[in-house]
Amino acid sequence: MPDSNQLERVVVVLVATRNSLNIGAAARALSNFGFPHLRLVRPWDPSFQEARSAVGASDLLAHAQVYATVPEAVADCTLVLGTTAVTAGGRRDLQHPLDTLADAAAQAREHLAQPQTRAAILFGSEKTGLTNDDLSYCHRLLRIPTREQHISMNLGQAVAICMYELMRTLSAAPLPAAETARPAPAQAAEVERLTQLILEALQHSGYIATGAETATEEKLRRELRRFPLTHHDAQLALGMVRQMVWKLHDRQ
Amino acid sequence: MPDSNQLERVVVVLVATRNSLNIGAAARALSNFGFPHLRLVRPWDPSFQEARSAVGASDLLAHAQVYATVPEAVADCTLVLGTTAVTAGGRRDLQHPLDTLADAAAQAREHLAQPQTRAAILFGSEKTGLTNDDLSYCHRLLRIPTREQHISMNLGQAVAICMYELMRTLSAAPLPAAETARPAPAQAAEVERLTQLILEALQHSGYIATGAETATEEKLRRELRRFPLTHHDAQLALGMVRQMVWKLHDRQ
Repeated sequence: MPDSNQLERVVVVLVATRNSLNIGAAARALSNFGFPHLRLVRPWDPSFQEARSAVGASDLLAHAQVYATVPEAVADCTLVLGTTAVTAGGRRDLQHPLDTLADAAAQAREHLAQPQTRAAILFGSEKTGLTNDDLSYCHRLLRIPTREQHISMNLGQAVAICMYELMRTLSAAPLPAAETARPAPAQAAEVERLTQLILEALQHSGYIATGAETATEEKLRRELRRFPLTHHDAQLALGMVRQMVWKLHDRQ
Repeated sequence: MPDSNQLERVVVVLVATRNSLNIGAAARALSNFGFPHLRLVRPWDPSFQEARSAVGASDLLAHAQVYATVPEAVADCTLVLGTTAVTAGGRRDLQHPLDTLADAAAQAREHLAQPQTRAAILFGSEKTGLTNDDLSYCHRLLRIPTREQHISMNLGQAVAICMYELMRTLSAAPLPAAETARPAPAQAAEVERLTQLILEALQHSGYIATGAETATEEKLRRELRRFPLTHHDAQLALGMVRQMVWKLHDRQ
């Protein structure tokens, strides 16, 4: 079995899940493979209450945390992976790096080998998956390699496969120490603070065209998450941009 | 993607499944990963009809074949793998070799690289799993590596994980030709004919103690499946034992 400390630093985030059976199935799969932390963003309320009160509902589900937004649910995470059924050649224009589940699990393993890290895996709603706004909080996307003719998986099954693959990958032999001795990465909350501060600076600078606010915000958020920012980087950048904002404000 | 000819030579057998949602979920997972063949042994009838008529029920489910017994469902198979939640240190005395899912998938890949082979993966009912009688038709058992404190998985999720792992393993680079140039293995139906003929010989020989018929039959069945019998081996043995039976019969 993998280091339980690593399993503790994985959180599964179900976004806008509608079906109580899927919430229960996801909780069961987490428990089967030893991942204790389930978080829910805006679950459809009757569904969530039903799942919680179902016979055999787990402790894990009783302790699941509920959040109003994705950035709150991933605030303490240093790696945020979004799941998608869309292929690189698919309909939606993917603006993130897209990995197979096995590659994503290998990356998560390398990331979690560093201290002070926490990885989140996001699953969207049964009907629509993750929205572009949800995706803008992700560092990378992953895809379970289903066949092109039938890409869409049942949510409970998708969660089970991801937990199996991640547990299997984390169970592999430990990484050489050199790969783990890296500075602490930035938490999602820090990166989001930086995003908001830069947006404020751009706003004050007259950079953002009217009507393009949302597109600019999502683009900036994605771009910032492409870089492996450390906690130190984030603090440094926050200080710099804060000063710019202060000065820009002063000029108005 | 793996060689589609190999995916065609895998059959999933659900034994005595009770819940229609699980039958539907299993069919969906097979379709997601490109395995076309689902077989059902004694499904709980209302459940099966419900699954078949559900909105979005797949072609795959419409073409699923129904059998009365396990030996009929695996008659044309040359490798039969049973799934179990039981660990080697668990409650039931395991009388089969037990592999992790990943190891079993690697063995299936090697087996399917040979022509004229077909592999079956059996899943038992939600409540009791595979019975000892069901298991006696299996060559080996496999286990999804869930944690000791929560070993029992949801059936639909277990099928999905097995299909994912098998597809992933079959997608690996082809095996060297030397490993594939082997004589055709015996089909399950041949091995079962041999089992029954040996039992008849033992019966006529007065080997089988009264009251021990079932235990002897299951033991013999398991033992015979431990050996990698070829079609040629099976035919040769059938001829030999048939002669013995004829002679024994003559003596009575």
